[in-house]
Amino acid sequence: MSNAENQPRRGRRAPAGAAVLQKDVTLAIQAAVFTELARHGYGRLSIEAVARRAGVGKTAIYRRWNSKLQMVVEVVSAAAVKVMPVPDTGTLSGDIRELLDAGAQAMRHPLASQIVPDLLAEAARNPDIAETLENALRETQQGLSAVIVKNAVERGDLPADTDAELAFDMVFGPLYWRVAVTRRPASADYLDSLAEGATAALIGAHGPPERSAE
Amino acid sequence: MSNAENQPRRGRRAPAGAAVLQKDVTLAIQAAVFTELARHGYGRLSIEAVARRAGVGKTAIYRRWNSKLQMVVEVVSAAAVKVMPVPDTGTLSGDIRELLDAGAQAMRHPLASQIVPDLLAEAARNPDIAETLENALRETQQGLSAVIVKNAVERGDLPADTDAELAFDMVFGPLYWRVAVTRRPASADYLDSLAEGATAALIGAHGPPERSAE
Repeated sequence: MSNAENQPRRGRRAPAGAAVLQKDVTLAIQAAVFTELARHGYGRLSIEAVARRAGVGKTAIYRRWNSKLQMVVEVVSAAAVKVMPVPDTGTLSGDIRELLDAGAQAMRHPLASQIVPDLLAEAARNPDIAETLENALRETQQGLSAVIVKNAVERGDLPADTDAELAFDMVFGPLYWRVAVTRRPASADYLDSLAEGATAALIGAHGPPERSAE
Repeated sequence: MSNAENQPRRGRRAPAGAAVLQKDVTLAIQAAVFTELARHGYGRLSIEAVARRAGVGKTAIYRRWNSKLQMVVEVVSAAAVKVMPVPDTGTLSGDIRELLDAGAQAMRHPLASQIVPDLLAEAARNPDIAETLENALRETQQGLSAVIVKNAVERGDLPADTDAELAFDMVFGPLYWRVAVTRRPASADYLDSLAEGATAALIGAHGPPERSAE
């Protein structure tokens, strides 16, 4: 794989014109991937159609990704990380409420409502897709959850042995089931109640924290 | 639609031979629907292929269901209800633990791991499928949740105004996210912790119950 376009060389300035072009091309390809995925699904998506829609040659795509699968999963994962910022409000229930807000917004994005279900359906038939997609979802989840739980442990709101994966499941799972699977609305009141319930769940699943110095 | 085969006539005994044949046919069609769905997905499933696999004529299918959509959703919903019995252990946490056990088992069934993701992906493109599927999921969910919450309210474990939908989301959502979406294992220890967390969530989302006579 050529890395002439992809990788800035350390210690040398990349030509400014080339760098701008490169970013434009990447953005155009990303947008084209989303449009093609939403319209045709993963199974019927072709590299040719993405290249045509982005107004680039196929080589521009193969310079960035090895395969259709790698391209789709990386583009989708990058977008998922972008729409789910790590909250840091100073309280556990505040962090959970903010995560739920970002999650509810993310699920109105075609990414969650159309593209992820489609990839999950493909994953049920194709172990390569399943593994790549699961790893991407897990990494996003672990990144978010580790920080929220670590902050809560440091404040003494949760015990040090809190299971960050279980915590994320209990915060995000109900929202996903409600909005993405059974497609019911998540009002602000609903999110308030869910945040209260999820906060109680995180504390209740592990028992109250032991405080050594109080 | 002809109801000669489907509906037992009240006040008259149906001929025994015909009744046995009818049930056999229904079971054969149901099994064929599952096999065809798992192999080809909803989009490529055909009534012809189901009839062929079940060893029946297409009229036997159209006697039971109006359309491919109605057939698939009813067969899938009936199976979902069957694998999710309503627990009645005498305690809220016991009921939740049992529901989680049944849910974890149900998710190992091809129904949840392959067919539901596939239908959800179709639903993202087809509003008819979306509506029919959502109604089926909601009815299953509401049936289960209403009984568990009603029993807990009668015991004084939950307040009378408990939101049964939110309750089900908080119990079942984490499990679905973990097992069906991100495909991680749900050990007995995990289910124990989740049951404890979900019990705390149900109580915490609504505040403690007000007890009038204690």
